[in-house]
Amino acid sequence: MQFYLDGFRAGDPDISTAAANRRDRDPHAPLPEKVDVLIAGTGPAGLCLAAQLAQFPDIDTMIVEASPCNINKGKADGINTRTMEMFQAFGFADKVKRESYWVNQTAFWMPDRDAPGNITRVGRVQDVADDSSEMPHILINQARLHQLFLDVMRNAPSRLAPDYNWSVKDVSIDPTTDDHPVTVTLEDTGVDWGAIRTVRANYVVGCDGARSNVRRAIGGELHGDAAHQAWGVMDILANTDFPDVRQKCLITSAREGNVLILPREGGYLFRMYVELDKLRAGERVAERGFGQDDMIAAANRIMHPYTIDVKEVVWWSIYEIGHRMTDRFDDVPEGESPSRTPRVFTAGDACHTHSPKAGQGMNVSMQDSFNLGWKLAHVLQGRADARLLHSYSAERWAEAKRLVETDHEWARIMSAPPGTSALDDGTEPRFIRAFKDNLEFTGGLAVHYAESDLIGPATHQGLATGLPVGRRFHSAPVVRVADAKQMQLGHAAQADGRWRIYAFAGREHDALHRLALWLETDPASPVVKYTRQTEDIDALIDLRAVFPQTFDQLALETMPPLLRPTKGRLGLQDHEKIFCVDHKGAGDVYDMRGIDRGQGCMVVVRPDQYTAHVLPLDHVDTLGRFFDGIFA
Amino acid sequence: MQFYLDGFRAGDPDISTAAANRRDRDPHAPLPEKVDVLIAGTGPAGLCLAAQLAQFPDIDTMIVEASPCNINKGKADGINTRTMEMFQAFGFADKVKRESYWVNQTAFWMPDRDAPGNITRVGRVQDVADDSSEMPHILINQARLHQLFLDVMRNAPSRLAPDYNWSVKDVSIDPTTDDHPVTVTLEDTGVDWGAIRTVRANYVVGCDGARSNVRRAIGGELHGDAAHQAWGVMDILANTDFPDVRQKCLITSAREGNVLILPREGGYLFRMYVELDKLRAGERVAERGFGQDDMIAAANRIMHPYTIDVKEVVWWSIYEIGHRMTDRFDDVPEGESPSRTPRVFTAGDACHTHSPKAGQGMNVSMQDSFNLGWKLAHVLQGRADARLLHSYSAERWAEAKRLVETDHEWARIMSAPPGTSALDDGTEPRFIRAFKDNLEFTGGLAVHYAESDLIGPATHQGLATGLPVGRRFHSAPVVRVADAKQMQLGHAAQADGRWRIYAFAGREHDALHRLALWLETDPASPVVKYTRQTEDIDALIDLRAVFPQTFDQLALETMPPLLRPTKGRLGLQDHEKIFCVDHKGAGDVYDMRGIDRGQGCMVVVRPDQYTAHVLPLDHVDTLGRFFDGIFA
Repeated sequence: MQFYLDGFRAGDPDISTAAANRRDRDPHAPLPEKVDVLIAGTGPAGLCLAAQLAQFPDIDTMIVEASPCNINKGKADGINTRTMEMFQAFGFADKVKRESYWVNQTAFWMPDRDAPGNITRVGRVQDVADDSSEMPHILINQARLHQLFLDVMRNAPSRLAPDYNWSVKDVSIDPTTDDHPVTVTLEDTGVDWGAIRTVRANYVVGCDGARSNVRRAIGGELHGDAAHQAWGVMDILANTDFPDVRQKCLITSAREGNVLILPREGGYLFRMYVELDKLRAGERVAERGFGQDDMIAAANRIMHPYTIDVKEVVWWSIYEIGHRMTDRFDDVPEGESPSRTPRVFTAGDACHTHSPKAGQGMNVSMQDSFNLGWKLAHVLQGRADARLLHSYSAERWAEAKRLVETDHEWARIMSAPPGTSALDDGTEPRFIRAFKDNLEFTGGLAVHYAESDLIGPATHQGLATGLPVGRRFHSAPVVRVADAKQMQLGHAAQADGRWRIYAFAGREHDALHRLALWLETDPASPVVKYTRQTEDIDALIDLRAVFPQTFDQLALETMPPLLRPTKGRLGLQDHEKIFCVDHKGAGDVYDMRGIDRGQGCMVVVRPDQYTAHVLPLDHVDTLGRFFDGIFA
Repeated sequence: MQFYLDGFRAGDPDISTAAANRRDRDPHAPLPEKVDVLIAGTGPAGLCLAAQLAQFPDIDTMIVEASPCNINKGKADGINTRTMEMFQAFGFADKVKRESYWVNQTAFWMPDRDAPGNITRVGRVQDVADDSSEMPHILINQARLHQLFLDVMRNAPSRLAPDYNWSVKDVSIDPTTDDHPVTVTLEDTGVDWGAIRTVRANYVVGCDGARSNVRRAIGGELHGDAAHQAWGVMDILANTDFPDVRQKCLITSAREGNVLILPREGGYLFRMYVELDKLRAGERVAERGFGQDDMIAAANRIMHPYTIDVKEVVWWSIYEIGHRMTDRFDDVPEGESPSRTPRVFTAGDACHTHSPKAGQGMNVSMQDSFNLGWKLAHVLQGRADARLLHSYSAERWAEAKRLVETDHEWARIMSAPPGTSALDDGTEPRFIRAFKDNLEFTGGLAVHYAESDLIGPATHQGLATGLPVGRRFHSAPVVRVADAKQMQLGHAAQADGRWRIYAFAGREHDALHRLALWLETDPASPVVKYTRQTEDIDALIDLRAVFPQTFDQLALETMPPLLRPTKGRLGLQDHEKIFCVDHKGAGDVYDMRGIDRGQGCMVVVRPDQYTAHVLPLDHVDTLGRFFDGIFA
């Protein structure tokens, strides 16, 4: 991580210098009358967006929450590898890695053929395939995750914090103005219960859950699968003779139903999901008040011959959920896109809901708002036209659709009765195969945005076969030349709204040098055209180079100036933009990502870590046109 | 990391539940009249000791500091791999790894043979040899390190914090009592400047630097090399055309003197040491007021043809230092050990000083007090006789002696004029060879405690040839069986005052099972004899097992109960004591540490991470006698 660019300052380097224009957060200070962005809800989607926008002190962001404070326990707990990659960009992946449970293996249990009243282990699967991501799949208390986003917000230049005890009741848009056209009606849920206030915003984002008032206000409705499934979930501290209690387990009994075990952070806690529809008819959730004791009893029956001795039920809940989504994730009706741009958005559960079994909900919610955050920042900072904002619903709706469909299919397979047919004569049981086939999806790594103004054509994909255009930039090991440090190339990216160009040198370095010179000096270069006079040269587009030699074969003094720019108040040299292949056995990035060693290439990566373009190093005209299609 | 053992609690898991009996730290609360341990000084030695003792809320610890607050900048900055291993046990190694500069390579520059007025790179050395430690060698602002210890103290059950603005003026010992026999005279250095207070303590530790009043009070004197060397040091933000500015560099010019470059955290800051004795005679420090501008000018001359353009001098200092140490590190005069036990100790600069060039000072200081911490805790908790405390001076004095001698030799080699003879006809220059030979020492890995009550004989060293008795336990990759997590075995150790026994199974597992049963149930077992009724079974001695199979070949349900103990208020199962060899290519711990695959062995490790014994799994009598020699 970089710091001291504007001079030394003692203390925690994660705490940014506070911006002078930040809001007065004295408890008796009034609410603002106008803000740039108002976010409804402090769940994962809302907090991820707030943490992103908090990096830009020139954008007034307000995030409101009807509850009086952060949650303590319960709700979602699964973080897939893709989300961990995003946490890395926010700076707290290391903290999460240290505190959380890592899902290394998933175990599968089914009825014993010889004694069908007993369950037996039928298989194990490595949960994160080798080199699918540099990050683990982890499980952690959602409340803790919220806190880590709240810490990012508090440490950001704007010192952003939620306004608790305010519920968004209504949203209305004045189509006749561009000056804070959205009026948000807030209701006090605290000591002045019921008091009404209004705030005007340029943009409103409804991250207010499945019963979203923001969605309702823009006429959105959740459609989809009406065949609800009922689930019991409990977080427990318990002893058991079941040997796999510290592995993720999918357990199917012959007659008593199904259980999903998710070990949790700290070494003792674990979560159990009990599929209630599969329980004996007399216990169906719809028929009577099913409580924690019933759930514990059901789990013990399902896991026979093993027993679970519960010492503390930390949290439990019963819920019914279907696979549903809205027709659009913003306020622009179909067909009106050419004539108006969005002012109100929905994200997360407010626009799509899923079963918990694939562990996707919280992840997709955060990816929604991470997709939206940089786009809002670009528009509010005057860098891009507001038409850019159409791409949020376009990109995320298609992904949500795919998610709902995959989730639906997955739930069907998982809930199918474990007849002998499922074992398919000695080959892998069907649900293990399905689980393996689904790993890229459950890891959040299957997201693939279609070609658009923001995603170039795959014309030159052959130059980087392992970095598909439209998918998340897949990190790989490199060494930083200046200090010979082993690193992940993808960790150059921070959640700072900047674009990255990773330029991979070919056998000769000339083409890369010419690209760097063009970017720095040519009037047609997006760096020259769109970076402002007051900004560092890499404030908008951050060029990084990768060389196929090892660090000791490269001479920093011969590198082009754009790769060693001077920055900040003091005009200090940045030494950390030049990388090369690893020399210590971690793997060769050119081989691992299919980079053309002869020609090299450049890989353009969006602020949300998605690969936007792969181009030959000398296709600067195409590069220029691509950015001309985005920046104003 | 483990948490929730006594039930779920939301929030940061690094924050322990506060102990009920902790001191009232209201600003107007009086100083305590009596404490168990009074520590003088909040440098690295004092804070490391305080952070260790803070884990034991039954021990009243007070740490006083003449300054009004923590330092902001300056002083030492090098943390070797051994110290990083200790930070891992304190829980903040990951944070340091993220924030700090990693010394991956050291570069050597000498006069160019063809143009002796210019320097040229003559070699590079990988700074941390492969598998010498799982930790990097890092550089970080000492003030930040202090803060990380202060955080550990504040988050510990005792919520320990320094009493700033109190200077220890004198210490006196009343030999007629065992009830807080040490009277400490404190002088107010704050608003009541000069006011005197006394506090009585059972033990006093002087971590009050080279001018230690505690040392003076017990009659200690620093002896040693009078040939002082003068150094200038500056932490700067600067631009340069010198290509290795982000590598650690040892630079020797033909006529202008020597410079040492140490890059620092954040990507921009670096430190330069300029050896002033080598400067032109007219500039010697003793002769005139040598300032930061002179130092910058000297550095530019030495580094010719490269130049350094300084943008901000963050901190600078000039100091002269010799290699000196005291005759003992406690208050017991030679020959009186049989009849009395120590009450007052010195640690760090209070008892030994060094040149900065090998980067040892701060590391050795912390290792001093980490050696002392668990011993004080054992004695104050009534687990061990006070005679245990003699071992502090015995072990650390011998190490300090070796350090002073090695440092002296190193300084001599480094300062020798770079004649052509130093290049030795095409082979490596002498100072590069010396640097390489010294890496184990500078890594802090060469410490070797002699056989004693605390260090067994090396009789059975052949069973674990890579884990020498008397040296720090060398971690290696393993997999935790319960959750198939790749880990470092050494990270099972925390700074909690506990002993560990790592039992490596042989080809058959029977011997390990018998050992576990004996430890759990035999009247002669130290676990049975010395663990208190109110304590968890692993509170004093923590048995961990390692198996030569991979995780999927082991059945947890067959493991002995001591490896799956129930603990805490709720009686919860601990699943994290059983390890096995890595199955993903990180290396085989048996091969890496020379463990006998046929017989296995047990490795006893002290609370300060030093290997105390290597024994066959069935040598329980020897094991019992070893602990009988320590515990009361």
